[in-house]
Amino acid sequence: MRATILMSPGRIELQTVADPRLHEDTDAVVRVVASCICGSDLWPYRGLNGEQPTAQQIGHEFVGIVEEVGAGVRNVAPGDFVIGPFMYSDNTCAFCRRGVHTSCVNGGGYEGCQSELVRVPQADGTLVTVPGEVPESLVPHLLTLSDVFPTGHHAAVSAGVREGSTVAVVGDGAVGLSAVLAAKRLGAAAVVAMSRHADRQALAREFGADAIVETRGKEGAAEVREILDGIGADCVLECVGTDASMKQAFMATRPGGTVGYVGVPHGVSIDPRPIFARNIGLAGGVAPVRNYLDALLPAVLDGSIQPGKVFDLTLPLDQVAEGYRAMDERRATKVLLTP
Amino acid sequence: MRATILMSPGRIELQTVADPRLHEDTDAVVRVVASCICGSDLWPYRGLNGEQPTAQQIGHEFVGIVEEVGAGVRNVAPGDFVIGPFMYSDNTCAFCRRGVHTSCVNGGGYEGCQSELVRVPQADGTLVTVPGEVPESLVPHLLTLSDVFPTGHHAAVSAGVREGSTVAVVGDGAVGLSAVLAAKRLGAAAVVAMSRHADRQALAREFGADAIVETRGKEGAAEVREILDGIGADCVLECVGTDASMKQAFMATRPGGTVGYVGVPHGVSIDPRPIFARNIGLAGGVAPVRNYLDALLPAVLDGSIQPGKVFDLTLPLDQVAEGYRAMDERRATKVLLTP
Repeated sequence: MRATILMSPGRIELQTVADPRLHEDTDAVVRVVASCICGSDLWPYRGLNGEQPTAQQIGHEFVGIVEEVGAGVRNVAPGDFVIGPFMYSDNTCAFCRRGVHTSCVNGGGYEGCQSELVRVPQADGTLVTVPGEVPESLVPHLLTLSDVFPTGHHAAVSAGVREGSTVAVVGDGAVGLSAVLAAKRLGAAAVVAMSRHADRQALAREFGADAIVETRGKEGAAEVREILDGIGADCVLECVGTDASMKQAFMATRPGGTVGYVGVPHGVSIDPRPIFARNIGLAGGVAPVRNYLDALLPAVLDGSIQPGKVFDLTLPLDQVAEGYRAMDERRATKVLLTP
Repeated sequence: MRATILMSPGRIELQTVADPRLHEDTDAVVRVVASCICGSDLWPYRGLNGEQPTAQQIGHEFVGIVEEVGAGVRNVAPGDFVIGPFMYSDNTCAFCRRGVHTSCVNGGGYEGCQSELVRVPQADGTLVTVPGEVPESLVPHLLTLSDVFPTGHHAAVSAGVREGSTVAVVGDGAVGLSAVLAAKRLGAAAVVAMSRHADRQALAREFGADAIVETRGKEGAAEVREILDGIGADCVLECVGTDASMKQAFMATRPGGTVGYVGVPHGVSIDPRPIFARNIGLAGGVAPVRNYLDALLPAVLDGSIQPGKVFDLTLPLDQVAEGYRAMDERRATKVLLTP
């Protein structure tokens, strides 16, 4: 099959590799219908993850059709259209039962989904079947359920967004935009999106943002506070992961509020004194996507949310390198790949 | 009046100073019935707060009888027995309405309660009257409501303790012991107290601790995890404030759990990566005591909790220096002072 390989920072190639096969009774092999490029793929693409780069298959978001299942798989069958959460999990262990599927004792991550076929461990616990016929128009929305939309949702849930909350979102990438949509869905009374890109601002508005703040840092946080009752947001959704964005998030939060963070921290160090003084909480982490799918899938199926609008560029798999360049250069917010 | 003065690190003196008087229409002057020494008083006593030490009145916990009120005071009157939360607040501003009285726009802290008289700003918002006759036996329990018990309670609330939670408490000072009591009151199914002092272990047991862990650090956290379903605590209550105690708290928390922290951070730096990976949240801060008194006072009055058991040494005010020494040398857990 053809698979995307990160050869070294900045160098993406589509190569022919061996088809994945069942290793365990609990595996499935899924034929990819659509995959996409994640903001977190840009960290190794940019050589910013610290480790020595070696050639590796890449990609962790996909939807597809089950091709083959191991002898122990009960919940999915060949022909099923499935969503593939970006980490696999058994959905039964002590952590999964508490909704933290990302800490599953039999779980882990996988790479290699920007390709034609994917081997999925713990298929019963991991894959979620979409019932009935799946119209092509629904595919982008379903694809977001593998990572980006539940990740934005996780920021909102972790920050405690509920009916009437005031919310600020730091980061206008696909996760940040998803967080805007998720916050509105959870009943936020006011959402301020921090963005300096016109196209992303437009989508933030479409997803329900009530105000946009273009300024960053201390001044941007002050603008957020001014808009939100002069005191700051009940809930700030941090969707970047840098030290500057975390500081901005804390400064935009009202005393007693919470920062929900989902941007993988890179070079972040937290001095607790200023947040201790103002009783600002911090919650979040790697999004336990599988935990949210039972709630989010119906909202996508009935059309009440259309999270797939974050995709602003669709490319065939053989142009994946251009997809990375487009996201790296911020010409695209999020790239959908079709085999 | 006589007042406790911290002359320089390690040097406490009882001196005669001018009686406090009403400054503002919203002030009250309260005659102290009982005050106490806080673990946080030991930071400047030990010279560990960084700033250049100068002679200063000290003490921020008290109960007493209102002596005099300003012209604008409506809720308390001379003769009332009142609880004095350790920070004053108007109880009406945007932050107070959200329960974060410690960020009150008209609020602040005060020192000088280890004395005979205290001026209380924002008396209407700050002071809570105890109805009816106050038997002497109730005084220690009521006194804890000025700081130590609501602070332990704040750790528990911030960590999200509810019916059925598993809890670990880091720190066996008066706040840690209060946190044990608060967690049980909120319905914790299991509470592990981390303590290596026999007398404090005994009180932790009396307050409801189901298990004691004497070991500290990485090994201690591993013991906590082993006791609590092999996975760690839903809620860890951090009641110390050092870098080591924070690390211990995070290590004792299960993935998806929360650390509620109330120990004033001293030299703490948080690397978010390990807690991000395990979805461990952090919440808490300076306890908004006033916010909790409407709920906690009835529980003290009806005898369902007896938080005053944390006092294991009562001294007259003129022995206040010995009180500090006893706490500094860990001969006493918490010292009550009578004028």
